[in-house]
Amino acid sequence: MEKRLTVYNTLTRRKEVFEPLAPPFAGMYVCGPTVYGDPHLGHARPAITFDLLFRTLQHLGYKTRYVRNITDVGHLENDADEGEDKIAKKARIEQVEPMEIAQFYTDRYHKFMDMLNVMRPSIEPRASGHIIEQINLVEQIFEAGFAYEVNGSVYFDVEKYDKNHHYGRLSGRVLDDLMANTRELDGQQEKRNPFDFALWKKASDEHIMRWPSPWSEGFPGWHLECTAMSTKYLGEEFDIHGGGMDLLFPHHECEIAQSVAATGKQSVRYWMHNNMITINGQKMGKSLGNFITLEEFFTGNHKLLEQSYNPMTIRFFILQAHYRSTLDFSNEALQAADKGLKKLMAATSSIKNLKASDKSSVNIPELSNKCDEALLDDLNSPILIANLFEAVRIINAAKDGKETVSADDIKGLQAIADTFLYEILGLSDAAEGDSDQVLLDGLMNVLIGIRKEARAKKDFATSDKIRDELLAVNIVIKDTKDGAEWSRG
Amino acid sequence: MEKRLTVYNTLTRRKEVFEPLAPPFAGMYVCGPTVYGDPHLGHARPAITFDLLFRTLQHLGYKTRYVRNITDVGHLENDADEGEDKIAKKARIEQVEPMEIAQFYTDRYHKFMDMLNVMRPSIEPRASGHIIEQINLVEQIFEAGFAYEVNGSVYFDVEKYDKNHHYGRLSGRVLDDLMANTRELDGQQEKRNPFDFALWKKASDEHIMRWPSPWSEGFPGWHLECTAMSTKYLGEEFDIHGGGMDLLFPHHECEIAQSVAATGKQSVRYWMHNNMITINGQKMGKSLGNFITLEEFFTGNHKLLEQSYNPMTIRFFILQAHYRSTLDFSNEALQAADKGLKKLMAATSSIKNLKASDKSSVNIPELSNKCDEALLDDLNSPILIANLFEAVRIINAAKDGKETVSADDIKGLQAIADTFLYEILGLSDAAEGDSDQVLLDGLMNVLIGIRKEARAKKDFATSDKIRDELLAVNIVIKDTKDGAEWSRG
Repeated sequence: MEKRLTVYNTLTRRKEVFEPLAPPFAGMYVCGPTVYGDPHLGHARPAITFDLLFRTLQHLGYKTRYVRNITDVGHLENDADEGEDKIAKKARIEQVEPMEIAQFYTDRYHKFMDMLNVMRPSIEPRASGHIIEQINLVEQIFEAGFAYEVNGSVYFDVEKYDKNHHYGRLSGRVLDDLMANTRELDGQQEKRNPFDFALWKKASDEHIMRWPSPWSEGFPGWHLECTAMSTKYLGEEFDIHGGGMDLLFPHHECEIAQSVAATGKQSVRYWMHNNMITINGQKMGKSLGNFITLEEFFTGNHKLLEQSYNPMTIRFFILQAHYRSTLDFSNEALQAADKGLKKLMAATSSIKNLKASDKSSVNIPELSNKCDEALLDDLNSPILIANLFEAVRIINAAKDGKETVSADDIKGLQAIADTFLYEILGLSDAAEGDSDQVLLDGLMNVLIGIRKEARAKKDFATSDKIRDELLAVNIVIKDTKDGAEWSRG
Repeated sequence: MEKRLTVYNTLTRRKEVFEPLAPPFAGMYVCGPTVYGDPHLGHARPAITFDLLFRTLQHLGYKTRYVRNITDVGHLENDADEGEDKIAKKARIEQVEPMEIAQFYTDRYHKFMDMLNVMRPSIEPRASGHIIEQINLVEQIFEAGFAYEVNGSVYFDVEKYDKNHHYGRLSGRVLDDLMANTRELDGQQEKRNPFDFALWKKASDEHIMRWPSPWSEGFPGWHLECTAMSTKYLGEEFDIHGGGMDLLFPHHECEIAQSVAATGKQSVRYWMHNNMITINGQKMGKSLGNFITLEEFFTGNHKLLEQSYNPMTIRFFILQAHYRSTLDFSNEALQAADKGLKKLMAATSSIKNLKASDKSSVNIPELSNKCDEALLDDLNSPILIANLFEAVRIINAAKDGKETVSADDIKGLQAIADTFLYEILGLSDAAEGDSDQVLLDGLMNVLIGIRKEARAKKDFATSDKIRDELLAVNIVIKDTKDGAEWSRG
């Protein structure tokens, strides 16, 4: 760990050298998905951003525990107006089960994140699986005097908290400005102040997901789960908390307030936020109705898409921008990303074919250092990628005899590709995999055509050679009266 | 749902017509993995058996809710003898975190089940995520008078229960025989009778996973989670409970006792158990040290394996035996399964090439009915597969002109393959997928060799044709001084 990573800390508004609490361990918590809808491009960005951080920390030698939650405490309600039908539905199995919906979208989230080559976090706790911990946290906040109960619901007393501690220190807001900004499901009238937030909500009759608590049968407030689960798995103080910038306020601000109220500790040392994806300058999101799901990107099945895009193209597109910049979606930008990635992959996969010269006309160790510097400078992936394109230029120039590279430098180029392109950026050849079958069929058609022609010309030497060489790769050609058929042996 | 499924009910020891409580809904609960080790062949069998049931129920039109749990309430302990080192470890992140291990093996389990084409269940609840429900269940059993507390631990009073209800009705055992058979972690001395079982255990100082409860800070007994989670997601009474035969006693027996004690209801209507996988006649299992993990099967990296086996070969091997028969592992049996599957796949993938005759010499509707009958007769997959091999015989005979098939019967054959082989047995071509890359490289070598030879013979017509046809499938050939290189366009 000689190399020092710097990260931009939202809390201090500057880049800081990352110094974990208990090296060689590093702990990071990232807000994960709410699993009541299909993952869209707006989910891909934080996942890929903090995947890059996770890979970087591991690359630097930190034993990293990465916790990313699943928000499955939803707000599905039984339909109270079903009348007769409702009476008929007596069995549990006939009712909507929120966990079935949550499981479905959790599995979908995993599937698409796998396609994007996002590594699984070390622990992926579900909010519904940590109700006890959340109730305990409410009790701690109560004992510290920063919570009050109304009709079975418990609220955080922001005004009282702000007297001793600064509410708004993360987001830079001040309490007086916040009157109009709170978001709540209901029960505004129960709160002493509109900017107070719920720690526990009493469930209405229609509310399906509910648990017993000292205050009511109900469910935890939205901000509670992240504080409870990060504390459980990383401790009262831990290194990094990440998430999208849209969560900065009120969610992360409330997390800090909850931690300070319960334990007196700020809990998080480095707050990191990725910026938003925009579409024509507007944030892409469910509430705005302008989001494109990942499945739609991969199939091309959306009115805004001119074509389908490979998951690796999406990953590269996201990494081409620095995580703290906004990233505007367009077909042109994705098509350019696709081209760029292909160029990178074609060049790096041909490093092994380079001819070594006695002397190098290029400085590969320096290039490798520049890659490191870019990565360690607050994960500057666009600069890192620019350096990888310099490697592409060198590789292609060496092929054309315009640059020379020594045997050591060929190894150095390969190490740059292996470390930065494949391992840390997590990119791979977009063309591989799903299109293999199509390609195999295409190649076999070419081969069968050549063989047919050779037979027509009585060139049995060639036709037999093709048959034998295919046998060697386990493909059997069978001549039938309708032409040649092939199968795997 | 005209077709009636019969299943062997362990409870009644006979085949019964499956009649769900609330058609068209069907509910099934299956005991899932304990996620503190890598999945082995013994995990594949119940997963594939109940995957076959899940697919069959859906095929019959039932809206099926399939719940399979993750047992993650483990028994990892902090090392109490670490001395100095332990004192140094103050931060949470420096300690062993059971959930990190559970997450790792949960992800591994999912990965290998996906490779075996086992469908994800509708809900996959974690034991650690349902502590509240388990505590509530203990309280219910307490109130009903079938539990007692000793030193913060709670036990089920089997003797008292047996006076009113028959303990042993599922397994056919009687209480007097059970003295020597209970399995407990510790604390035998606390129990009134050795065959009582723990509902809640007080955690020792070293025990890491622990939750508050009315009796002690501790953790639930092993049998509790399945009763609590099946009740939560399927109701106090539900249709099918499945699992391996090794779980029949004491686990499932105790589940019944817990349900009857808490609610007065038997809860499960059809108990289904898959038999064991043996190796040289002995049960394969972790405790016996003779298990082979799925990864070892897929890589061939185990001293008992002569080669690697494709996941589809493993799936087919398991389905070739009826789920209630033991299945003995051997390389010969797996190699035979591999051959059989290839034969099935080769024949069924060539149905589309069959020439239609005016009349059929075979009876395809009858064959289709036989497939249905086998499936509906307690999921008799070996008979179903035998019928599919009859289809193979017909397909191959039709190709050789020894049988004739009409256009309708060709459609019928295709429907048999689509429904039974692909959809219900969940099989696919073992050779596809992972070996594609190897094959592509092999084919390209053949093509490049032919082109090189053609150029040597000045047959530029052929060499250009190859280049052009490859371009058409998006492969670019570039001639360098070291020979031809190819890349995807």
